[in-house]
Amino acid sequence: METFGKRYHPPGTPPGTLSRHGAGGETCIRLFEYDAEQFSEILSPSVTQCQAALGNTKVDWLDVTGVYDPAAVNQLGETFGLHPLALEDILNSGQRPKIDFHEQYAFLILNLPHLVEGEILLEQISLFVGEGHLLSFCNGDGTAFEPVRERLRQGFGRIRTRGVSYLLYTLVDVVIDSAYPLLEDLGEQIEDLEEQVLEKPDKRILNTLHELKRDLLLLRRALWPQREVINRLIQHDAELVDATMRPYFSDCYDHAVQVIDLIETYREMLSGMLDIYLSSVSNRMNDIMRVLTIVGTIFIPLTFIVGVYGMNFENMPELKWQNGYYGVWGIMIVLAIGMLAAFKWRKWL
Amino acid sequence: METFGKRYHPPGTPPGTLSRHGAGGETCIRLFEYDAEQFSEILSPSVTQCQAALGNTKVDWLDVTGVYDPAAVNQLGETFGLHPLALEDILNSGQRPKIDFHEQYAFLILNLPHLVEGEILLEQISLFVGEGHLLSFCNGDGTAFEPVRERLRQGFGRIRTRGVSYLLYTLVDVVIDSAYPLLEDLGEQIEDLEEQVLEKPDKRILNTLHELKRDLLLLRRALWPQREVINRLIQHDAELVDATMRPYFSDCYDHAVQVIDLIETYREMLSGMLDIYLSSVSNRMNDIMRVLTIVGTIFIPLTFIVGVYGMNFENMPELKWQNGYYGVWGIMIVLAIGMLAAFKWRKWL
Amino acid sequence: METFGKRYHPPGTPPGTLSRHGAGGETCIRLFEYDAEQFSEILSPSVTQCQAALGNTKVDWLDVTGVYDPAAVNQLGETFGLHPLALEDILNSGQRPKIDFHEQYAFLILNLPHLVEGEILLEQISLFVGEGHLLSFCNGDGTAFEPVRERLRQGFGRIRTRGVSYLLYTLVDVVIDSAYPLLEDLGEQIEDLEEQVLEKPDKRILNTLHELKRDLLLLRRALWPQREVINRLIQHDAELVDATMRPYFSDCYDHAVQVIDLIETYREMLSGMLDIYLSSVSNRMNDIMRVLTIVGTIFIPLTFIVGVYGMNFENMPELKWQNGYYGVWGIMIVLAIGMLAAFKWRKWL
Amino acid sequence: METFGKRYHPPGTPPGTLSRHGAGGETCIRLFEYDAEQFSEILSPSVTQCQAALGNTKVDWLDVTGVYDPAAVNQLGETFGLHPLALEDILNSGQRPKIDFHEQYAFLILNLPHLVEGEILLEQISLFVGEGHLLSFCNGDGTAFEPVRERLRQGFGRIRTRGVSYLLYTLVDVVIDSAYPLLEDLGEQIEDLEEQVLEKPDKRILNTLHELKRDLLLLRRALWPQREVINRLIQHDAELVDATMRPYFSDCYDHAVQVIDLIETYREMLSGMLDIYLSSVSNRMNDIMRVLTIVGTIFIPLTFIVGVYGMNFENMPELKWQNGYYGVWGIMIVLAIGMLAAFKWRKWL
Amino acid sequence: METFGKRYHPPGTPPGTLSRHGAGGETCIRLFEYDAEQFSEILSPSVTQCQAALGNTKVDWLDVTGVYDPAAVNQLGETFGLHPLALEDILNSGQRPKIDFHEQYAFLILNLPHLVEGEILLEQISLFVGEGHLLSFCNGDGTAFEPVRERLRQGFGRIRTRGVSYLLYTLVDVVIDSAYPLLEDLGEQIEDLEEQVLEKPDKRILNTLHELKRDLLLLRRALWPQREVINRLIQHDAELVDATMRPYFSDCYDHAVQVIDLIETYREMLSGMLDIYLSSVSNRMNDIMRVLTIVGTIFIPLTFIVGVYGMNFENMPELKWQNGYYGVWGIMIVLAIGMLAAFKWRKWL
Repeated sequence: METFGKRYHPPGTPPGTLSRHGAGGETCIRLFEYDAEQFSEILSPSVTQCQAALGNTKVDWLDVTGVYDPAAVNQLGETFGLHPLALEDILNSGQRPKIDFHEQYAFLILNLPHLVEGEILLEQISLFVGEGHLLSFCNGDGTAFEPVRERLRQGFGRIRTRGVSYLLYTLVDVVIDSAYPLLEDLGEQIEDLEEQVLEKPDKRILNTLHELKRDLLLLRRALWPQREVINRLIQHDAELVDATMRPYFSDCYDHAVQVIDLIETYREMLSGMLDIYLSSVSNRMNDIMRVLTIVGTIFIPLTFIVGVYGMNFENMPELKWQNGYYGVWGIMIVLAIGMLAAFKWRKWL
Repeated sequence: METFGKRYHPPGTPPGTLSRHGAGGETCIRLFEYDAEQFSEILSPSVTQCQAALGNTKVDWLDVTGVYDPAAVNQLGETFGLHPLALEDILNSGQRPKIDFHEQYAFLILNLPHLVEGEILLEQISLFVGEGHLLSFCNGDGTAFEPVRERLRQGFGRIRTRGVSYLLYTLVDVVIDSAYPLLEDLGEQIEDLEEQVLEKPDKRILNTLHELKRDLLLLRRALWPQREVINRLIQHDAELVDATMRPYFSDCYDHAVQVIDLIETYREMLSGMLDIYLSSVSNRMNDIMRVLTIVGTIFIPLTFIVGVYGMNFENMPELKWQNGYYGVWGIMIVLAIGMLAAFKWRKWL
Repeated sequence: METFGKRYHPPGTPPGTLSRHGAGGETCIRLFEYDAEQFSEILSPSVTQCQAALGNTKVDWLDVTGVYDPAAVNQLGETFGLHPLALEDILNSGQRPKIDFHEQYAFLILNLPHLVEGEILLEQISLFVGEGHLLSFCNGDGTAFEPVRERLRQGFGRIRTRGVSYLLYTLVDVVIDSAYPLLEDLGEQIEDLEEQVLEKPDKRILNTLHELKRDLLLLRRALWPQREVINRLIQHDAELVDATMRPYFSDCYDHAVQVIDLIETYREMLSGMLDIYLSSVSNRMNDIMRVLTIVGTIFIPLTFIVGVYGMNFENMPELKWQNGYYGVWGIMIVLAIGMLAAFKWRKWL
Repeated sequence: METFGKRYHPPGTPPGTLSRHGAGGETCIRLFEYDAEQFSEILSPSVTQCQAALGNTKVDWLDVTGVYDPAAVNQLGETFGLHPLALEDILNSGQRPKIDFHEQYAFLILNLPHLVEGEILLEQISLFVGEGHLLSFCNGDGTAFEPVRERLRQGFGRIRTRGVSYLLYTLVDVVIDSAYPLLEDLGEQIEDLEEQVLEKPDKRILNTLHELKRDLLLLRRALWPQREVINRLIQHDAELVDATMRPYFSDCYDHAVQVIDLIETYREMLSGMLDIYLSSVSNRMNDIMRVLTIVGTIFIPLTFIVGVYGMNFENMPELKWQNGYYGVWGIMIVLAIGMLAAFKWRKWL
Repeated sequence: METFGKRYHPPGTPPGTLSRHGAGGETCIRLFEYDAEQFSEILSPSVTQCQAALGNTKVDWLDVTGVYDPAAVNQLGETFGLHPLALEDILNSGQRPKIDFHEQYAFLILNLPHLVEGEILLEQISLFVGEGHLLSFCNGDGTAFEPVRERLRQGFGRIRTRGVSYLLYTLVDVVIDSAYPLLEDLGEQIEDLEEQVLEKPDKRILNTLHELKRDLLLLRRALWPQREVINRLIQHDAELVDATMRPYFSDCYDHAVQVIDLIETYREMLSGMLDIYLSSVSNRMNDIMRVLTIVGTIFIPLTFIVGVYGMNFENMPELKWQNGYYGVWGIMIVLAIGMLAAFKWRKWL
């Protein structure tokens, strides 16, 4: 995940300026129209088809993926009467999740996290919900919504019999729940790491710990505000979230809170693990140094003794004793054993 | 306790999908019907018996333990008119404790912690309280509710003369209070550990400390929201919690708060103990290294001196002195004593 | 102070069960009846005397100390119509301070901290305040209330001319203010410790620091909720706390807040002192090791040089030089001084 | 950034006293008058021109940069009827961002951060917004507003067709958004530093880390209150922020919140990096010391052995053995290899 | 600053008991009476003069400094009808800043910090504000109010033309702003310290850091509640703080908040500096130990080699080689250079 991760215009640029960021893939627009009886899916609908969709009584979902092209966004904005600042937010990805209530529609920005080759990526999901229609913009490839599209196509579950609010719930639910597989994966990484830290602490653990902490920090920044977004959606908008939909959005809210809970718990676990890692490493180092120093300490006095009898004084009576040499060995062995015993007794060994 | 510990469906699964998680034991359903005069207990009641229970004026407690079978849950859901999302929550254990108010009933999820062979396990308790009936689902073996069942069977205390709200209180009280024996046990572990840390710090303490911290962290995640659940129950539901029941639920609330207080205090005590442990270990290590280094430092100059008189220069007058050898010993003894004294004086020994 | 410190019944016990905890001393009951003119004190009043007290217009204070006997508490509960859960709370000491408003009375639980032989003990004070009467239960020996009893007996100050609310204030004030001598004592201990830490850090400081931190942590847990109790008393109960009593209870509230402030400040000071202690110890250790290592480092090359001339090669011209021996000494002295100078210059000494 | 960074008068100075702080550049006053059709820009307008501006129906922007001169500020204050305390705040820079609602106008103080030669500087922006006119005071050179001036001059975008509230939004937007380039720059510095910390930790990193942390701390102090300022502007002032302007100011608010989010994330990342840096350094040091100590430990026993055979005892049979010398070499080689193997086996090497 | 710093009576003392704490200087009472036209100053006014002051329409300021004498305070309390608890608070200094609204007056306690010989002292300022009169009690020498007295005497600024509310503002402003010179001084100390920490970390820095942290902690405890006091004054008392006075008290509030901001920033900077100091010290120590250990490590193998040729074996062919001695020197020089190179290559030097 990017540390800064925000696209923006230079300060002073007129609001509503749209510009292309990054290379991006190609934009794909799908228009789903359905009610309990009928269902149609139009790939790359024309402006006229879009306007027709606005007029009818069916639920219309304009599903835009791979949003990088200012011109396309601008045209859709004009067709559906979207606020220029909202259009700017769609293109300038890296927004903080938020909800704005405009006269004609509610505008939500959410972050969809997913793992790509072990790295966490964020897709920005922008949703406009008006009466009978929903526009979704996703600056990634939008595969996360594929199960929803399939449910619509197959008519599986209740989705086709319910209105636009149920569709909104379905999409929000996908976005929020997409954190679970990620967090399960991270949870397993953390448990593995914990075992390693307790059993065989290793230098590479430090970097892994740091990267996990960093990822969780950035993930928290990206997901924390979603809790508030859903809360405001429930509190504020009696039309979108009526009595029958309330349990559904409540459920989303509970999941958003639990995601934050999990992230926070993980962060605290990692902090605890860093402490344990550092202590383990320092314990291990201390053990090594202690043993080495003890080896040294035992030989230093012995070396001194042999040094004494290496002196060349003419008058050193011990040198002439018959058993002097063996006596010195005896003294040294006693001394070495004594020192070892003393260290053992003091629990230094 | 599990780090992630949440069962979930892949994002995009239709809401209300029920599926089996884990192997699980067998489901046991008991139907208790009682009022001040009468009492009956039916094991594995039929659907008709359940529907009859809904109709009468007695208090009905449908006590389901070992919930793992989607079909059974689904059938009960249909009989009692429960929301599909709630049924999903019962099976997908690892939910965050919560309370939802539906039209016909209130739905609570609580976590019941208990110790099994030194490890903390969580049972998820799901409660539906409607007019005159209560459904409890427990994904463990439900032994925690055994004293309540006994009180009902024996007609002991006030429980049979009171309504469904008192039954709810009794169950919630059991769930909340089940943390006390656990925390008393943890408290004793912490006090033992504290004594060890202060008196004989040992390498294994580190792992114990870490595991206790981790358990408290996960326990806090599981129990923290229960405080809010009971608070909302008291605030919100004037029907369930009337003036006579309010002191009882207040008492539950106080206990829930105290449980959190205890967990937080324990966590801070463990943090303090980690600091003390690290300092003690480092103090001990410093003592060892200091003594060893001092031993070395005393012998190094002595070894130098004996080295000097081990040189083979032809012209070294001292070597020929009659008492040269004894003089060197004298100098060395004086030097060694002087160094020891200096170290003592500087409080290095 | 006890880490867990809470008495409780096994989960599932019927609410209102009373049982004896601990050995406890003997219960002492005193009934004070007074108004501006009259005063009487009855030791161990009979049930009839208690009931008479309830009826009359004087202020009645039933002052119970040493509460451990379930039978006595139960009888008083029946006489004065107290809630069974409240009676349970009186006996199960270690409650979190709280206030409950019942129909006939307000029920407060407070913690009275005091020092006994250098250790902090908590007495649980339970107060029932009804119209014209106050019941106080103290599970210690109740000496803290002796000055109040004396003021009543002597008729000193305003206490006899005021109602039950003033009596309540007086008792609450004693409980809250009893933290001041304790905190003054702890403050002095902390200042002494601080001086020691800065001037001569010592191993025993670590344990003292840890014990102080632990005591403050437990003290905070015990006293923190009292602030909220008094606040709720002021906010909620317009009858007990009328305009004339408000400044008095406000004063209590300010003191409760200041007690928390002091505890928090002390805790932060101790944390700061731990950092300083650790740094001082490590500085001292570094100093020792540095000097010792420098001594070693100076002698190691010298020992090498003397070793060189201790070699037994037949062809070593230096050995035959007339002043070889003195030359070597010269070189060694120059080297030693040079190394000392280099260390000095690098500020290593 | 300055640690204290606040200009103030000695306590007791009468409120509204204006005095010059610092050397400052020269004051530049520009008066912009415009509506949808007309536009004029007057450099250094006279008092009469200002008063005329107040009277007409066009939007008037009095843009004052380089504010250091008490006399000029005082005259403008009198002309536009500004509160003396507000004038004092303009000159005494280093104010906390705030908003005050006076009868005739709203008064905002904001901080505009920008990078000058790698150092973060703050310009204090003071804004007075009354009916149809806006006064901006900037104690820097005001180049940040240049794009806005250009947009007015060119009539680019919607700015000329909208009222004073849109102008206010434009200026506030510039101030808030000016943090983005700064934070992007800091984010890059942090990522670079992170790579260094993980790959080749170096002593200079410590100072860089500290300076970044310090800058972020001071930046947070300067920008944190801006969130509240904009929130109060939206909540409070229905006249300035009407339904059409609300999305614009909402957008500003979102940006202000995101800026704080980014600062907090950066601060936590830096804290994590300090931990990692310290661990890396200590790991590296441990590696060095371990290897060195092992070298020492291997040679110390060997030196002892050669010392033994350097002794001058007359009766040392080994010395006379034909292969004694080679035997000693053999023993020493075996010993050295054995020790190396033991260290390897214990994973000390 | 004192750690405990609170004067109190033993728990159980009747409320409103007044007693002398500390030696204290002499009490000085000044009565200022003024309106737009007139001004009089009476030193040590009589009771009658005080009562007269209460009756007239001028603004009366009774300015009491050096408050230690219970009798004097009691008499003033009776003359002006002050609450006994408030009088107790005046004498028992070390109160937490607070505001109480009594029927006849508002009662404020504030802390005035000032530097005396490098140490921070707190003066407790107690203010009673009733209709047309203000009583100020200061338990120090009251020099901080001298500029206000001078402004009154000289009739400088608006002070004489405004009512008692403006006088209150003036005094509160002096108290709040008195923290600025202090914090500027502390800010400079911190910047100096920072430079030292980064450039030449030194043992004495530790104590300075600790003392600064401790002072800021106690200062925060003393000043933190003042923010709330002023806020409650603005919110609560529409009479004292009317529309014209609101900007003035708002300004005070902003300053009180900024003071807290500065204290918090300083505390975080000091924490950061402690980390940096510890790292620098440990870096420096590591450098020393590394160099010393390398010196040792190079000479230990050399000493071993010379030891080898110091052995007295009869059969050591090398000893008889013509160039044996020079060969050994060659080997040793190569070895030493090789080791130095290896250390250099591994970046250990």
